[in-house]
Amino acid sequence: MNQIDGGVCAPKGFQAAGVAGHIKGPQSTKKDCALVVSDAPAAAAGTFTTNVVKAAPVLWCREVCRAGRARAVFINSGNANACTGERGAEDVRETARRVAAGLCIPEEEVLIASTGVIGVPLPMERIRDGVDGCLGSLSPGGNSDAARAIMTTDTVPKETAVELAQGRGTIRIGAMAKGAGMIAPNMATMICVITTDAAIAAVDLQGLLRECVKHTFNRICVDNDMSTNDTVLCLANGRAGLAALKTGTEDCEAFAHALRQVCGQMARALVQDGEGATKFVEVRVEGAHNDEEARRIARSIAMSQLCKTAFYGSDPNWGRIACAAGYSGAAFEPARLDIWIGDLQVLTHGLPAVYEEAAAAERMRGREISIRVSVGDGPGTCIYWTSDLSKDYVSINADYRS
Amino acid sequence: MNQIDGGVCAPKGFQAAGVAGHIKGPQSTKKDCALVVSDAPAAAAGTFTTNVVKAAPVLWCREVCRAGRARAVFINSGNANACTGERGAEDVRETARRVAAGLCIPEEEVLIASTGVIGVPLPMERIRDGVDGCLGSLSPGGNSDAARAIMTTDTVPKETAVELAQGRGTIRIGAMAKGAGMIAPNMATMICVITTDAAIAAVDLQGLLRECVKHTFNRICVDNDMSTNDTVLCLANGRAGLAALKTGTEDCEAFAHALRQVCGQMARALVQDGEGATKFVEVRVEGAHNDEEARRIARSIAMSQLCKTAFYGSDPNWGRIACAAGYSGAAFEPARLDIWIGDLQVLTHGLPAVYEEAAAAERMRGREISIRVSVGDGPGTCIYWTSDLSKDYVSINADYRS
Repeated sequence: MNQIDGGVCAPKGFQAAGVAGHIKGPQSTKKDCALVVSDAPAAAAGTFTTNVVKAAPVLWCREVCRAGRARAVFINSGNANACTGERGAEDVRETARRVAAGLCIPEEEVLIASTGVIGVPLPMERIRDGVDGCLGSLSPGGNSDAARAIMTTDTVPKETAVELAQGRGTIRIGAMAKGAGMIAPNMATMICVITTDAAIAAVDLQGLLRECVKHTFNRICVDNDMSTNDTVLCLANGRAGLAALKTGTEDCEAFAHALRQVCGQMARALVQDGEGATKFVEVRVEGAHNDEEARRIARSIAMSQLCKTAFYGSDPNWGRIACAAGYSGAAFEPARLDIWIGDLQVLTHGLPAVYEEAAAAERMRGREISIRVSVGDGPGTCIYWTSDLSKDYVSINADYRS
Repeated sequence: MNQIDGGVCAPKGFQAAGVAGHIKGPQSTKKDCALVVSDAPAAAAGTFTTNVVKAAPVLWCREVCRAGRARAVFINSGNANACTGERGAEDVRETARRVAAGLCIPEEEVLIASTGVIGVPLPMERIRDGVDGCLGSLSPGGNSDAARAIMTTDTVPKETAVELAQGRGTIRIGAMAKGAGMIAPNMATMICVITTDAAIAAVDLQGLLRECVKHTFNRICVDNDMSTNDTVLCLANGRAGLAALKTGTEDCEAFAHALRQVCGQMARALVQDGEGATKFVEVRVEGAHNDEEARRIARSIAMSQLCKTAFYGSDPNWGRIACAAGYSGAAFEPARLDIWIGDLQVLTHGLPAVYEEAAAAERMRGREISIRVSVGDGPGTCIYWTSDLSKDYVSINADYRS
């Protein structure tokens, strides 16, 4: 598997665009409308927020992915089209219709995603202009514009692409994502669009995507909030010209592995660009009764405000880590608890290990921190990615709307 | 019921002391050892952290409260005596023994609590001095010194006392508490000592205390972390000279009501003095299927970093409130969701209400914010108290130990 350029346009048969549609305000010159189009019908899969309050585009995409077939994805930033009632649903339909008309495809094959402020109706006049602008500037090199157009409080665009050899040919997978804040387990406040020229049945793609998301996007947090709009979409158009992937085959497993890598890269990038984040922290839990218990412990540490402020302050305060593990709800024997910061063991069988405080602090000072927690000799493991909690996080979120 | 002075010394037969034992460091001149003593044997009740990792004094107090009888409570701040293994347990025993010897009571009647840094053995030399210092300065007016001695990052001491008429006499209840950070549901990082001169069987006192804690200390959060040391202790020494309270009687209900008021006052004070807190926020949820679902929704909003930063920024961003309600795990119809900020309805049946943004912002600007959320017409209700999340919270916690 090789890393390649091109983002969502790297796989064959995909074009993209990103334009300024003034959704972020009449004076804004930022790109805020993105379009990704496949030149052939594609199998479509998606995973969505589990929030009870779901934005209108999420409900729409769920239906499209249920049918399993799509040609295009239109995304706007600046407005989430959430808590907008029947009007929100109509706005989604109208947007899909306009994209469909421009591409001469059925509106049921247009996926729609929105991100931004909640509770304000979409400014449809500008959305129409945004759609038209995107249609007019679609190109095989439009991936970076699209990746930029979906940003909200993100500081950098996030895209990736990989290529893997399969039998007599090559398959490519590309992706772009946005995240930054409201990133929590069970789908971040994030949108990710994945494209591939592999051929695969929609139902199989859905299964693979769900599994990948479970181990990547659902294992990250920046804050503990889960948005109304979280969406991961994947389109597979078969334009690589290879036979359809059958689940269980070696080729399919290689594809699944690559898909998970791509999801992992995007998930990592979301955490690294978390609002106010100055550090990337990997929390690895092992020895739990089962994976679910390991996940609870990892999540509890990854979400703890006290752990996250300690990461920010480069304070090797393993007491807070032990404490967060303890209230996770997972059962374990405190006397079996081991904790490492980087390669340095700081807690052994529930008691402080002998180490130099300076050595521990040293391992907290970098941009990347790794925490390992062992709670016994069970088979359960989990890896979670999180960021630190900084003063900038508070500044960014204390006044997001003005 | 009247508010009176005197804190834990207000009820008859209680004395207290607070001295500087240098637990917080050799140079520290802060009070960090507190002692509360009843001059007669008292019924004892306690509720404790549900964290799997429990500090040594918590395990000790659980046993004392199981026996249901105590005469004294010794508390140190500056060191939590958590993750200290067998040595921690021995240190608790030795401390209890020293207090007991000084008071000529059995060591099994001495409750012990600790708060502060985790994983460092108690400096027993200084603890001994602290115990002796407390024994030497016990007085009926020592309540404020004691309340001050249990503080860690608290900015103000917290104590209260009330008096209520009962039949031919008067009963008094006094309390002191410490909290500040690590305050989350199911017991904050907090210690609260309640004294009363009522006569009541330990088993009945335990039942009343548990119920009071459920609706007060377990309904607050500052951060979402639950400490290894959370403890609420209550001593009832019967020195008011009235007949023992029997559950179900009017007198007992009046006592229970007063006890809950005292717990509520202390819980409120903890949130108001939350680390970096600039605002006190009451979240009231109603119309849920049942109280547990209401609690989930209230807790989700009270714990949301995005809601808490919006409170800090006086931003009437009800989208974040709707969002946090939506991912709480409680089932409700988004189209039934109503939200009020103060007396101003901002969301009606899942859609933005018509109101002036300035009017909403106005209701966010004060020191106290009230949020009301209705999710249907079910009987479930819950009130939760939380603070905002400020830059100061991050500053305070990024480097607590140095």
